[in-house]
Amino acid sequence: MENIVVQNIVRVEQSIIEGLRECGVSTVHEAQGRTGLLPPGIRPVYSGSRISGSALTILAPPDDNWMLHVAMEQIRTGDILVLATTSSSDAGYFGELLATSAQARGAIGLVIDAGVRDIGELKAMGFPVWAKAIFAQGTVKETLGSVNVPINIGLVTVNPGDVIVADDDGVCVVERKSASQILDEARKRIIAEKEKRKRLASGELGIDMYNMRNKLKKKGLRYV
Amino acid sequence: MENIVVQNIVRVEQSIIEGLRECGVSTVHEAQGRTGLLPPGIRPVYSGSRISGSALTILAPPDDNWMLHVAMEQIRTGDILVLATTSSSDAGYFGELLATSAQARGAIGLVIDAGVRDIGELKAMGFPVWAKAIFAQGTVKETLGSVNVPINIGLVTVNPGDVIVADDDGVCVVERKSASQILDEARKRIIAEKEKRKRLASGELGIDMYNMRNKLKKKGLRYV
Amino acid sequence: MENIVVQNIVRVEQSIIEGLRECGVSTVHEAQGRTGLLPPGIRPVYSGSRISGSALTILAPPDDNWMLHVAMEQIRTGDILVLATTSSSDAGYFGELLATSAQARGAIGLVIDAGVRDIGELKAMGFPVWAKAIFAQGTVKETLGSVNVPINIGLVTVNPGDVIVADDDGVCVVERKSASQILDEARKRIIAEKEKRKRLASGELGIDMYNMRNKLKKKGLRYV
Amino acid sequence: MENIVVQNIVRVEQSIIEGLRECGVSTVHEAQGRTGLLPPGIRPVYSGSRISGSALTILAPPDDNWMLHVAMEQIRTGDILVLATTSSSDAGYFGELLATSAQARGAIGLVIDAGVRDIGELKAMGFPVWAKAIFAQGTVKETLGSVNVPINIGLVTVNPGDVIVADDDGVCVVERKSASQILDEARKRIIAEKEKRKRLASGELGIDMYNMRNKLKKKGLRYV
Amino acid sequence: MENIVVQNIVRVEQSIIEGLRECGVSTVHEAQGRTGLLPPGIRPVYSGSRISGSALTILAPPDDNWMLHVAMEQIRTGDILVLATTSSSDAGYFGELLATSAQARGAIGLVIDAGVRDIGELKAMGFPVWAKAIFAQGTVKETLGSVNVPINIGLVTVNPGDVIVADDDGVCVVERKSASQILDEARKRIIAEKEKRKRLASGELGIDMYNMRNKLKKKGLRYV
Amino acid sequence: MENIVVQNIVRVEQSIIEGLRECGVSTVHEAQGRTGLLPPGIRPVYSGSRISGSALTILAPPDDNWMLHVAMEQIRTGDILVLATTSSSDAGYFGELLATSAQARGAIGLVIDAGVRDIGELKAMGFPVWAKAIFAQGTVKETLGSVNVPINIGLVTVNPGDVIVADDDGVCVVERKSASQILDEARKRIIAEKEKRKRLASGELGIDMYNMRNKLKKKGLRYV
Repeated sequence: MENIVVQNIVRVEQSIIEGLRECGVSTVHEAQGRTGLLPPGIRPVYSGSRISGSALTILAPPDDNWMLHVAMEQIRTGDILVLATTSSSDAGYFGELLATSAQARGAIGLVIDAGVRDIGELKAMGFPVWAKAIFAQGTVKETLGSVNVPINIGLVTVNPGDVIVADDDGVCVVERKSASQILDEARKRIIAEKEKRKRLASGELGIDMYNMRNKLKKKGLRYV
Repeated sequence: MENIVVQNIVRVEQSIIEGLRECGVSTVHEAQGRTGLLPPGIRPVYSGSRISGSALTILAPPDDNWMLHVAMEQIRTGDILVLATTSSSDAGYFGELLATSAQARGAIGLVIDAGVRDIGELKAMGFPVWAKAIFAQGTVKETLGSVNVPINIGLVTVNPGDVIVADDDGVCVVERKSASQILDEARKRIIAEKEKRKRLASGELGIDMYNMRNKLKKKGLRYV
Repeated sequence: MENIVVQNIVRVEQSIIEGLRECGVSTVHEAQGRTGLLPPGIRPVYSGSRISGSALTILAPPDDNWMLHVAMEQIRTGDILVLATTSSSDAGYFGELLATSAQARGAIGLVIDAGVRDIGELKAMGFPVWAKAIFAQGTVKETLGSVNVPINIGLVTVNPGDVIVADDDGVCVVERKSASQILDEARKRIIAEKEKRKRLASGELGIDMYNMRNKLKKKGLRYV
Repeated sequence: MENIVVQNIVRVEQSIIEGLRECGVSTVHEAQGRTGLLPPGIRPVYSGSRISGSALTILAPPDDNWMLHVAMEQIRTGDILVLATTSSSDAGYFGELLATSAQARGAIGLVIDAGVRDIGELKAMGFPVWAKAIFAQGTVKETLGSVNVPINIGLVTVNPGDVIVADDDGVCVVERKSASQILDEARKRIIAEKEKRKRLASGELGIDMYNMRNKLKKKGLRYV
Repeated sequence: MENIVVQNIVRVEQSIIEGLRECGVSTVHEAQGRTGLLPPGIRPVYSGSRISGSALTILAPPDDNWMLHVAMEQIRTGDILVLATTSSSDAGYFGELLATSAQARGAIGLVIDAGVRDIGELKAMGFPVWAKAIFAQGTVKETLGSVNVPINIGLVTVNPGDVIVADDDGVCVVERKSASQILDEARKRIIAEKEKRKRLASGELGIDMYNMRNKLKKKGLRYV
Repeated sequence: MENIVVQNIVRVEQSIIEGLRECGVSTVHEAQGRTGLLPPGIRPVYSGSRISGSALTILAPPDDNWMLHVAMEQIRTGDILVLATTSSSDAGYFGELLATSAQARGAIGLVIDAGVRDIGELKAMGFPVWAKAIFAQGTVKETLGSVNVPINIGLVTVNPGDVIVADDDGVCVVERKSASQILDEARKRIIAEKEKRKRLASGELGIDMYNMRNKLKKKGLRYV
């Protein structure tokens, strides 16, 4: 496996990225056919953020954060760093100093299938992180990885330039090429949900609203 | 296994339910002989709530939330939805729309041995949830389950109409028939603890207050 | 294995303990060569605290908190209780009553490789706890353990009198004898980091600041 | 919770028990509507056994095997000991000595939601065990539990006298009252499967045999 | 996400596949730069097999094995079925009947990021399986997935036609296009290892054979 | 933390080591007051071995097996290699080549709180290994650790020269200085157990043999 840094990646137009952020993780996930979610073990290190941006991907060796330093130079304003490892690791790849650098270069957040540290400082500086572990364990800078290559996290492949949407529900990845179409779908869902919400809030039942009673009966549900 | 919805369940008197809420999970758990706790993996999705109510139980297939829709019609004011699955699942069975419906019908919370989503919205609308996972993964509506049948979560069987007490310590289940007696026990503990707390706060040692020194010596504890 | 309570342990001078607190977990961990961290599964039960103190160690049997009662008498002002079990347990060894007693005797926190309960009350009274589990499951008082003997948590041995530093990043243990030297190292790091932070915040790249470009090239990193 | 030993339990007729053994875990599980399976974490400590018998249930405190000693007196020939704990434990509740006693009294196996030890000896004496853990950690004999009361393991409630079927696929529990009917269902499946196996072995496709092509098409499956 | 069955995939030449089998998982993994391993949780359900073949990939919904039935028709002699799920599941997707069908159609094994059952029968018929769980839990046939599309298992993407090598060490995936080159590398390693093995077996030390003493000294290793 | 290789360690007399092997893990663990067991997650990679020997300890960085190469030179006939990591890792630190070297230098087994590979070959050459994971993932040789320093695995500290006893029940560590005394205790247990086994095999009940009936009654056990 060659170790490369891909310097020019294509990003999605900012208005689409912003639109996806407004829809949120759950709606975007549904809009693209229930795909794209990172595993539930990847959680925000502090709650209350909702961001979206272009994925700047990083493939790093276990317990080695060298490639994060390399990635800083590739950041464009609005990017979200997304790091996967070549072998599972909980070590603390990222903390306040790297966040300072990333923020200075224009990054707006980090998604990492590994550990981070300096949680208090990250919260204070408003740099949201979604991570598998909070662990201060230090890393080395000995082995190469790659920047802006396709990476896998859980069941999802993240390609550089894909749109990342992240909030308290987790992280959803939208393929770059379908981002515009997914946004349309997501917006349709939001409009449809507004109407449904109103009816449900008035006490109407979903099994009536969705005409489920017949199907339930046919499958054999019995009321006693 | 037949799929049924039991429509009329017996509930505990509201004053007893409210009394158990005031005692809290840990005290109620102790009062009933250290039984009734759901597993520690079931955690509040946001902290700071303490509720109690009658269990409206739901048995659902893995990754299928159809029975939640069916359950809405069975809610009586003050009920807590309690969902177990027939095979383990982390999927997001419940989110803002279902919470809107549940709240409109009178439910005051959800306990679920599976995943939920729309965490931010649930917090904003004040609908507390205790869940095994936060995961936006969508579910289907294809396979039947049952409503208001006995269900198992961890080491505990929950029967419809049992009292659920839930706070930041977790979830405790009180059998319907013994709820009144458990409340008496719990209140006695609270009175006894008030006195103990005062003495401990003044610096008195538990090993003196509980007369433990002799027993410790007899078992062979040695001070060096 | 004999069961003992060691009554006189040597503690580190308060100014050094306070200095380590100011440095925080991540910095102290790095300053002592990336050692001393407890496992990432031991998390604060509520966030936002940073404490340091002398370890009063407790070795307890599974699901038996008797030794915590015994330990109370050994507390000196500023101590942190550190409990390990002889066999893995998630039970709730510690809650509000014990916290009241510990606080009255001068303890400032608890680190426990097991479960705790009364989370809401602990937060209200300002007694920070780092624990493996939040679980109300009650414990017995039947079997002896020891107080102020060496204990193991994860990969780390904690000796009585070692300095514990704990914050939102986790828990770090500093050997008593090297505490002063580690503080010097940690302070040097903090000064060095201040300078680095300034340069990184201005947009300078780490790979330039640390002269990494040559090493990266030699290892074979290729820019495309 | 009172601690009791129920001395007279009703058992299923031996011919039915034996019939269920011949069908095996997977078939019996399917025959009763995909219910009754203990969690996949409960595995045979050595492979190659298939047994069935009446459940003699034991509810034991964590890390305390006293109730196993009590249970020995209740064994009838052909019984299978089934142990659940009141709080999770991996300790070694059962080993060669208890197996010797159990075997002498007529028991033919053990299913335990906890740990066991003396694996080599258990295999040598032909006493099959399904357990959550292999762990030599010793237990105490201090706290009571109960014998022949309903217990929960995973999602399943085991009542005394239920039929246990256990093989390399895991453990399935059949309710005493429906054992005869489940056996009939299971045998029908075995006959039906014989025919299917023959057709599949000849190369016929399941999607033809089960007439799935139309349903697949209607759901939208596309061949490319 | 559209649901498709790709009917014509390109496979690697059989002699290369056979060569990779002879090299084994660990050597092939090293030969391709320490990539391609499926996670350690995917284990052989019985030990002692070593196989290699072309990946026939299956993407299936959680707890739904319909796509396995669909996949049977696409098997070519020597294929290995490789199944990933769209959301995590431990259910028993595959057992004796499907194995009979798969074997009749020419498949030589299964790799599955989910559960399987009928372990005893699979072993008896010589159909090796690598799985995440052994669990008899039945599945439904309600929701579509896809056949012969790229799938992710752990950190690895498996493309249809990739070469799968599986033995008691686990499973390694070799990209179709580089299979021939990886075989060359792997064979070189085997020759080199033969020489090393001989020297190590004679008692020569690796730190001498690999000239490590200087590097160790320079890094600061001290002998005491 | 300095990186050192301690070259001269004190070992226990071979007759004592051999005696402990004959007693086995469970008995030795009981004989030393239920201490010394490594966690249940450390399992034999193939079953049927029982060994004992002097611990040659290795402290290694995550995913880096360099120190294993260094350790080979320190082996004395009959030693057991015992490896802990400074941060958790499942990578394959050890395989056939290192086993060849270790065996040639006189080692008789390995206990490792990490992963190993070449399972088939290890079994064929009769080199038993107890490990946390079977995983072929390759490691690097970049960072120093230490040899023959105290290491922690789970709740146990292993000192160089301690006696390791390992069989299908797991691994037990006996402190060097108390090995002789523990052997005496263990042998007494074995003699006592012989008599007990005979009585239990004849059908006598443990609750009679150990005079438990009164204690059970006093604690409140009720027969119904």
